Amino acid sequence: MATDVSPVSLTAVDRPGHPVPSPALDELYRGFEKELLVPLWTEIGDLMPLHPRPAALPHVWRWQHLLRLAERAGDLVPVGRGGERRAIALANPGLGGAPYATPTLWAAIQYLNPREDAPVHRHTQNAFRFVVEGEGVWTVVDDDPVAMRRGDFLLTPGWAFHGHHNQSDEPMAWLDGLDIPLAHTLGYGFFEHGPEQVADRSAPVRSRAERLWAHPGLRPVSQAAALPSSPIAAYRWEHTDAALADQLALDAEGHPGVVEPGHAAVRFSNPTSGGDVLPTMRAEMHRVRAGTTTATRREVGSSVWQAFDGTGTAVVGEQEFVLARGDLFVVPSWVPLRISTDDGLDLFRFSDAPVFERLHADRVQVGP
Amino acid sequence: MATDVSPVSLTAVDRPGHPVPSPALDELYRGFEKELLVPLWTEIGDLMPLHPRPAALPHVWRWQHLLRLAERAGDLVPVGRGGERRAIALANPGLGGAPYATPTLWAAIQYLNPREDAPVHRHTQNAFRFVVEGEGVWTVVDDDPVAMRRGDFLLTPGWAFHGHHNQSDEPMAWLDGLDIPLAHTLGYGFFEHGPEQVADRSAPVRSRAERLWAHPGLRPVSQAAALPSSPIAAYRWEHTDAALADQLALDAEGHPGVVEPGHAAVRFSNPTSGGDVLPTMRAEMHRVRAGTTTATRREVGSSVWQAFDGTGTAVVGEQEFVLARGDLFVVPSWVPLRISTDDGLDLFRFSDAPVFERLHADRVQVGP
Amino acid sequence: MATDVSPVSLTAVDRPGHPVPSPALDELYRGFEKELLVPLWTEIGDLMPLHPRPAALPHVWRWQHLLRLAERAGDLVPVGRGGERRAIALANPGLGGAPYATPTLWAAIQYLNPREDAPVHRHTQNAFRFVVEGEGVWTVVDDDPVAMRRGDFLLTPGWAFHGHHNQSDEPMAWLDGLDIPLAHTLGYGFFEHGPEQVADRSAPVRSRAERLWAHPGLRPVSQAAALPSSPIAAYRWEHTDAALADQLALDAEGHPGVVEPGHAAVRFSNPTSGGDVLPTMRAEMHRVRAGTTTATRREVGSSVWQAFDGTGTAVVGEQEFVLARGDLFVVPSWVPLRISTDDGLDLFRFSDAPVFERLHADRVQVGP
Amino acid sequence: MATDVSPVSLTAVDRPGHPVPSPALDELYRGFEKELLVPLWTEIGDLMPLHPRPAALPHVWRWQHLLRLAERAGDLVPVGRGGERRAIALANPGLGGAPYATPTLWAAIQYLNPREDAPVHRHTQNAFRFVVEGEGVWTVVDDDPVAMRRGDFLLTPGWAFHGHHNQSDEPMAWLDGLDIPLAHTLGYGFFEHGPEQVADRSAPVRSRAERLWAHPGLRPVSQAAALPSSPIAAYRWEHTDAALADQLALDAEGHPGVVEPGHAAVRFSNPTSGGDVLPTMRAEMHRVRAGTTTATRREVGSSVWQAFDGTGTAVVGEQEFVLARGDLFVVPSWVPLRISTDDGLDLFRFSDAPVFERLHADRVQVGP
Repeated sequence: MATDVSPVSLTAVDRPGHPVPSPALDELYRGFEKELLVPLWTEIGDLMPLHPRPAALPHVWRWQHLLRLAERAGDLVPVGRGGERRAIALANPGLGGAPYATPTLWAAIQYLNPREDAPVHRHTQNAFRFVVEGEGVWTVVDDDPVAMRRGDFLLTPGWAFHGHHNQSDEPMAWLDGLDIPLAHTLGYGFFEHGPEQVADRSAPVRSRAERLWAHPGLRPVSQAAALPSSPIAAYRWEHTDAALADQLALDAEGHPGVVEPGHAAVRFSNPTSGGDVLPTMRAEMHRVRAGTTTATRREVGSSVWQAFDGTGTAVVGEQEFVLARGDLFVVPSWVPLRISTDDGLDLFRFSDAPVFERLHADRVQVGP
Repeated sequence: MATDVSPVSLTAVDRPGHPVPSPALDELYRGFEKELLVPLWTEIGDLMPLHPRPAALPHVWRWQHLLRLAERAGDLVPVGRGGERRAIALANPGLGGAPYATPTLWAAIQYLNPREDAPVHRHTQNAFRFVVEGEGVWTVVDDDPVAMRRGDFLLTPGWAFHGHHNQSDEPMAWLDGLDIPLAHTLGYGFFEHGPEQVADRSAPVRSRAERLWAHPGLRPVSQAAALPSSPIAAYRWEHTDAALADQLALDAEGHPGVVEPGHAAVRFSNPTSGGDVLPTMRAEMHRVRAGTTTATRREVGSSVWQAFDGTGTAVVGEQEFVLARGDLFVVPSWVPLRISTDDGLDLFRFSDAPVFERLHADRVQVGP
Repeated sequence: MATDVSPVSLTAVDRPGHPVPSPALDELYRGFEKELLVPLWTEIGDLMPLHPRPAALPHVWRWQHLLRLAERAGDLVPVGRGGERRAIALANPGLGGAPYATPTLWAAIQYLNPREDAPVHRHTQNAFRFVVEGEGVWTVVDDDPVAMRRGDFLLTPGWAFHGHHNQSDEPMAWLDGLDIPLAHTLGYGFFEHGPEQVADRSAPVRSRAERLWAHPGLRPVSQAAALPSSPIAAYRWEHTDAALADQLALDAEGHPGVVEPGHAAVRFSNPTSGGDVLPTMRAEMHRVRAGTTTATRREVGSSVWQAFDGTGTAVVGEQEFVLARGDLFVVPSWVPLRISTDDGLDLFRFSDAPVFERLHADRVQVGP
Repeated sequence: MATDVSPVSLTAVDRPGHPVPSPALDELYRGFEKELLVPLWTEIGDLMPLHPRPAALPHVWRWQHLLRLAERAGDLVPVGRGGERRAIALANPGLGGAPYATPTLWAAIQYLNPREDAPVHRHTQNAFRFVVEGEGVWTVVDDDPVAMRRGDFLLTPGWAFHGHHNQSDEPMAWLDGLDIPLAHTLGYGFFEHGPEQVADRSAPVRSRAERLWAHPGLRPVSQAAALPSSPIAAYRWEHTDAALADQLALDAEGHPGVVEPGHAAVRFSNPTSGGDVLPTMRAEMHRVRAGTTTATRREVGSSVWQAFDGTGTAVVGEQEFVLARGDLFVVPSWVPLRISTDDGLDLFRFSDAPVFERLHADRVQVGP
């Protein structure tokens, strides 16, 4: 068969490096299909582009819409063993309807009615909560009740048992972030049920984890090991707010510390390693001063941002999102992002950056 | 609207934790769709199973079939800029036709005709080659020509320029392993063209990298940094074979060293860190002594195995594969694997284990 | 010559493994001396004992005595370029008059008169200050003025420029801790003069370093690298006190966290790594509840302790020290320590533990 | 008392920063002595010099002298429990007669008569052997007999049981290197006796450790942990020689790899970490091509060098040592070293560099 194809004609004139269509080629391709094979040369443009071309798309979800639907789910959908949580996830329009904000990140609004409980379970997927408004729920992580209040960032590391209970007469909603898509795609998810209800229904202002760990630069001598996830169950807004205010004040005095002029940012970190709070997720709080436009920045890896306070605009690739409190938007891998604000803007952000850094696949480009 | 649903009836009797179907619920679900939202409670069984339930399936590909198709491609398909490589990839039957052996791993047969070249390029995807038979090709990695011979394991770390040239009058085929699926899903792939041909067409027995680095326990003093990928361009079969033989001899003498009785295994490692050869991939050579059946083992993460010498059987989940030289099979995440051989069997294996270890998501279970 | 010594008589009956004294042996030993050689067999008992037998001795220094002498030095001794600091060091009675608290650690009282300055310099020796009483001095570290107040722990990492200025009308004294003996013995000390006076004579309540770094679990996003020394210039007493109080409260409630019942302890740590504040020194604050006696503990490596508040007793080896505010005592390597208090006792401690941990030479024994 | 000293006269005109001599000052100094205190201002010049000024001095010991004395000790001194080893240590002329080659390093000639044994013991001090000539002894490390031959570098990590036995009819001498001075000064030495004789008196060509570990870039899969010391019991001369020859050949071909033109060097390394073979000691082999003079280099930390083959000259500070086989010389901290050879020179080197790197106190200066 080889003799009927001239080497000279192997490559089509307008597609160098590719074969000339022919019945023999068709037969070869059918052979590939039969044997569950796919050639590189037909796929390389999509498989190995010159730079990341993610399937995920930039998109914004409006908090008021989420909240209204979550309230309605509060009426119609119970919370209990089986469904486990009244959580409603962002489904990126580029990802075929899967409940994935990005290929790695899950972002959902979770909603509890007054006096309602969510049953105890655990999973290897890492999780956190961020509270854009409201209070009254305690998330109980490995038997330690952790109050949830506006601006707080709360951790549920992989394989920690956890349930929630709403101690108040008001419903409460918050943002859940998990690495569910990554765990699902890669196949590392385990799940286990715990008791129907949390055992410790007390409602302390501070969790035990905070009492042990949330002192700046101080570690309990009894706990000397490096932990894969941060032991600080709750990062309180008062500290985050103060750190951001300090950075902007230093900036105004002419000292370093901010990311760029007018743009302060703190990273929630693991005090036992200095690294990210969770092995798969990074979380940060950003404050952009009134009248500031940030540099344009693109990164390998994807992020979800939530407007926490103030107003402003995010330009993500070719899209522009005007932001109000609670609005969530997604920045896919290598899509440029620029934020600007007239009146000042606080933003929560989480990303999969630790995955890329650990795999030596991270890359950042700052500039126009 | 909330008033028309009694709290008592919220949960269907046979699906605790799930809502009762109703027109109101349908409307809620339509609201979710419209806002690009997906509820957790309808998806949790698939999204967060009790243990990994990978989409990828166990499967075997026969080397003789691959080789025959690759030879035919050698007749019909050129190698040149654009298509880049005459590589034909395993497409896992559970992954919808994508050229993915597993959700993270690419495995392909690559084929070069006599005196043929593959053009120079580089990409952030990490790559290696493993030679099940043949010789005569040099892969030129960052201008260092590396001979390819049966049993050799050869590295092309991410972002290293590389091309190949066949110096002989025989065609040559080998196994390519890359992290293309992981890079594609997560979005970390960059690609860049180099020259059409490799600059250094010499054909040394040993590469410069080996001359500097492939001495046991010895590092050049001039190169003190830890590198993310191994600087050993080629792990030669003579060393691998000797290490496996030594392990089995120690086992026979009653000393430790083997994985289990009759089962020797070496891991290709990075001499600057002791870790895996590549940030995203692990590679090992296994030797199972005649008359041995291994323990059943399941791991988080997926593997591709290739029979290198001898014969035997692999039981992967509920499938049984009788193996001949060059046959490739896939073990998806958490699917149990057991190998047995009457006459002795050497196997090459690569996996995504470093990804899970770096993300603290690794888990192993050995037993019946 | 060998013929005149019978092999049978080589070993003295009562000193097995040792040679029989003889003129030939004397001549051999003279040969050793002449060639600058020393045999192992005559020295091994001292050189390689069954467990550490440090030359340093347990000892206590009384703060009131130190302070009185420091005040007198304030009258008689200037502070300026050349002498550099009015610091008076503990000289362990076992170390031959050298100004070494232990073989690795320097501990000194430093004293500044009202409105007095100490000139700027830097050295590779790592340093910290701990304030047992008083205030009014700012130590200016790399141009960042850091207030010193009772209970504060302040860092001057190796090679940071630093000077002090007393802004008040009162003298001030504090404890200096450095790794001077280690640097001197091992030969790693470099020293460089800076300006005669600190450039920034402002007197802020918080240093810039604290404003950037002393927020619990929060890092500035602009500062992502791991640093060998902590960037927190000052660990304030209010945080240390709260952390100790929290630990004892958790203990009283039946929760873990303390070192042992009634004994709370926090370690000053590097938020960029979770490790010790300085590469060569560990620092901790201990609080022993009224009526508590700690377990007896021995560690490889040496410590200096300073009573900060309350009263109590330290049993160090065979010595017993009754402690009052500011008293300093030394625990040499592998000497057992036990602390007890009727009324409650707060203690500052620093040690060379990081040296041993980094060299894999650490060992701890807790028990009677 | 303060009133009788005028502030103006505090500083002597010719010693700024130092006090004026006076009876009151004398009394103060007597007070310091009584309280076991030493002022910084009188000691700072020695304690904190501008750069390291080690007490240890450059010195050379002639192997022929060592060997002659060791042979004589072979006649007069037994080897047995108590004295433990017939080892004779270099005593640096600057270190007051202590058996310390440098403040951290012990270097000794050890000598065993034909058919003689050295009893089993272990200690936390780390040890190695280097063989400049001879063979016939097996050192048995944790029951694994390790042959000793010319050019071999052999490890006895801290706390490994070890004894030796001479299987031949010839005496054998070699170089022992340990961190005894460091362990003694810092107080981390533990020592324990084992059996009088080694249990396994076999004499294999390769140790079990080598069979498991001395394959380039290959690790046994069963041994995945990082170890503080290298598991390679013996680094054989054939590998070291080949690695050095390869480096010089690459140099001659115009490729990188050597330390500097004409100067090849390999570091014995831990394959589980890429780091040094022992936590406290670095070991290297250097080959200087005929007609080469190295750059002048100074490092923080001290080294011992032994000429292995060829001839040459070492300039250490202001001393010049002409070297013959086996000669040992010492380079104290920060003393410059330059080596030159007309005919080619191979040198073994060991140092305390890991100590300084782990404590972030390392510094190197290369140049005239």
